[in-house]
Amino acid sequence: MALVVQKYGGTSVGDAERIKNVASRVIRTKQQGNKVVVVVSAMAGETDKLIRLAHQITSAPDEREMDVLLSTGEQVSIALLAMTLKSMGFDARSYMGFQIKIVTDSAFGKARITGIESERILDDLKADRIVVVAGFQGADESDNITTLGRGGSDTTAVAVAAALKADLCEIYTDVDGVYTTDPNICPTARKLSKISYDEMLEMASLGAKVLQIRSVEFAKKYDVPIHVRSSFNDNPGTIVQKEDTEMEQVVVSGVTYNKNEAKIEVMHVPDVPGMAAKMFEPIADANIVVDMIIQTSSAEKGFADVAFTVPKSDFTKALEIVKDSVREVGGKEVLTDENIAKVSIVGVGMRSHSKVAAKMFLALAKEGVNIHMISTSEIKISCIINSKYTELAVRALHDAFELDKPLVAEEK
Amino acid sequence: MALVVQKYGGTSVGDAERIKNVASRVIRTKQQGNKVVVVVSAMAGETDKLIRLAHQITSAPDEREMDVLLSTGEQVSIALLAMTLKSMGFDARSYMGFQIKIVTDSAFGKARITGIESERILDDLKADRIVVVAGFQGADESDNITTLGRGGSDTTAVAVAAALKADLCEIYTDVDGVYTTDPNICPTARKLSKISYDEMLEMASLGAKVLQIRSVEFAKKYDVPIHVRSSFNDNPGTIVQKEDTEMEQVVVSGVTYNKNEAKIEVMHVPDVPGMAAKMFEPIADANIVVDMIIQTSSAEKGFADVAFTVPKSDFTKALEIVKDSVREVGGKEVLTDENIAKVSIVGVGMRSHSKVAAKMFLALAKEGVNIHMISTSEIKISCIINSKYTELAVRALHDAFELDKPLVAEEK
Repeated sequence: MALVVQKYGGTSVGDAERIKNVASRVIRTKQQGNKVVVVVSAMAGETDKLIRLAHQITSAPDEREMDVLLSTGEQVSIALLAMTLKSMGFDARSYMGFQIKIVTDSAFGKARITGIESERILDDLKADRIVVVAGFQGADESDNITTLGRGGSDTTAVAVAAALKADLCEIYTDVDGVYTTDPNICPTARKLSKISYDEMLEMASLGAKVLQIRSVEFAKKYDVPIHVRSSFNDNPGTIVQKEDTEMEQVVVSGVTYNKNEAKIEVMHVPDVPGMAAKMFEPIADANIVVDMIIQTSSAEKGFADVAFTVPKSDFTKALEIVKDSVREVGGKEVLTDENIAKVSIVGVGMRSHSKVAAKMFLALAKEGVNIHMISTSEIKISCIINSKYTELAVRALHDAFELDKPLVAEEK
Repeated sequence: MALVVQKYGGTSVGDAERIKNVASRVIRTKQQGNKVVVVVSAMAGETDKLIRLAHQITSAPDEREMDVLLSTGEQVSIALLAMTLKSMGFDARSYMGFQIKIVTDSAFGKARITGIESERILDDLKADRIVVVAGFQGADESDNITTLGRGGSDTTAVAVAAALKADLCEIYTDVDGVYTTDPNICPTARKLSKISYDEMLEMASLGAKVLQIRSVEFAKKYDVPIHVRSSFNDNPGTIVQKEDTEMEQVVVSGVTYNKNEAKIEVMHVPDVPGMAAKMFEPIADANIVVDMIIQTSSAEKGFADVAFTVPKSDFTKALEIVKDSVREVGGKEVLTDENIAKVSIVGVGMRSHSKVAAKMFLALAKEGVNIHMISTSEIKISCIINSKYTELAVRALHDAFELDKPLVAEEK
């Protein structure tokens, strides 16, 4: 008998009929002899509806009250799912965040879970009940309602699984699992049967929107295996888990891309200590996340060129700040490029394999794709290219690393 | 400086525009130097929408889960009102039932408030905040969410006012106050400037749907004066308060009617001890509320005729039960009448005035209205008549007791 935490997203509980399907799936899992805890999101569209309602009142709604408002979405879902399970003859009980003490900090709208009291859930499971938990929400030490940010239900599921020491956390979504790359771009993209936490983190933060990053961090920290799969069929999905030796044999697991960044380049900056701080501190103060930063020596000695990327949505603001800094720090020219894309290859096998970067650059060069910036981590190599080459580059890299071919382990 | 609790119903917070109106009214009260606590209902139509959603799942939703579902309606309202107040520059904070510990029993769907911890609200008031409380909901000792039943927000408002020892509880609704009778039937109906708790209880239970009965019981128990008034204008409404000497001088305060009952009559029942119990116990077991019961001697000695009224919605069920009982207890015939109405006169002055009943019967007789059943309490006399005479009877009684004329006190 296993303890399974299942999470269903907004599309999976989008209407009464779909909620009944979810209930059937939960019951099937229970009848296979498992203890089941279900985490659900708000019905598809509900959260947006509530946000619109708030914006009819004010363009900048109070954050504490926004969380009170938004948390009703998940509350409706848990009540409907629990009453569905009961009407199908299975004892069930729903819980909001505050009831099972999903304790968070007080950062309304983006709260972090600091603890979960597992006692009440375990008591219910012992009494043979199915437990239904509202995703996305918690309560701070003073019982103020908080929410975890978009996609927070994934984090709730993993956190609950960790607190209960569950055997498995299944995340049901509207995709089949994690693919080697975007199947819409690359028809030979293949579903991965498993992937390590670190790879998943790189994949997620690079733009593969299957799991919320924070949920993967949580899963890694507490070693909770996640099974990402579709709620609309019974196909096995992708297991996100601790790295194993099999994974290490695979050099590259996936190719990702991100078109949502823009580049800012400052030429001929005096190359003195503290220059970088003076330039990037005001950007950080404006809550703008800088992704890549590259500094190179300028043609003239004692000067440097600095290039970096920011989210497109923050581009205008970042540019203003940079122009201010240049006035202070010095620098000849500020160049910008909004037509960029970042393509990346991710894989834990990179650690023990050489020549991966060279192979990547060669594959891009073969297609005539010029590389503007490069950044690397232990398990990832990213290149900034002209955005018009995005799809071409993704396909070329997918081919070059033979991601269309099943792994030896999967062939068996 | 007074502490005022204001309650706004679903129509008053029906959309963003109306919520802003409510906020303006709340702010005006605050700017007059008062501490303000606001209790709100769900936006008009929301509760019904949630009920429909549940019924798409099952015709008999689990009661615990139903309360989790329904309580979201008020939660949306408090969040929207609090963020409106904040956007208008006034510090405000919303609370769900569980947060300020509106503790109830565990009778889901019809819970009773057993206590309120006033500390958190008082702290906020001290910090110059406006406090916004979700009506209709609480939480039991185990933090399960409960609801108080339809109209429960009135009860929340009065209970909060009692706990805070508020100076006044204002119930804003879509009517102007409490009238001597239904103005739709009787154009000379007059708004009462004040009415006693007991009279209001009789008026409410007899069909004048201005305040939830339980809220009046609460107000009476804790001596909280209620001001019932319209949220769409600034007219003074009706104060529901402790009986005073002025009220006692008024013999009849109002005329009410109720067309939602049906009569069942069992003829020629053996008049032996325990007969009534045998007949009414199974009806009570079926949760049917019997209103009037009248037993008279039958024509033949040792037998009795028993007549009683039940809500029309329970009529068919009650009739079946009665027929079963008659088979067991004995009895000659079961007669029924669904075309009945109950007209009543209510007034605390009745206690000290004689001849009130006679005057009522005479007024009805003058119009040729036949009386089927009569029941009386200290401050109320009710007559069952043929329903086709309802409006005629109401007008006749309103005239006979000169309810169209303002009280001496009000003339000043």
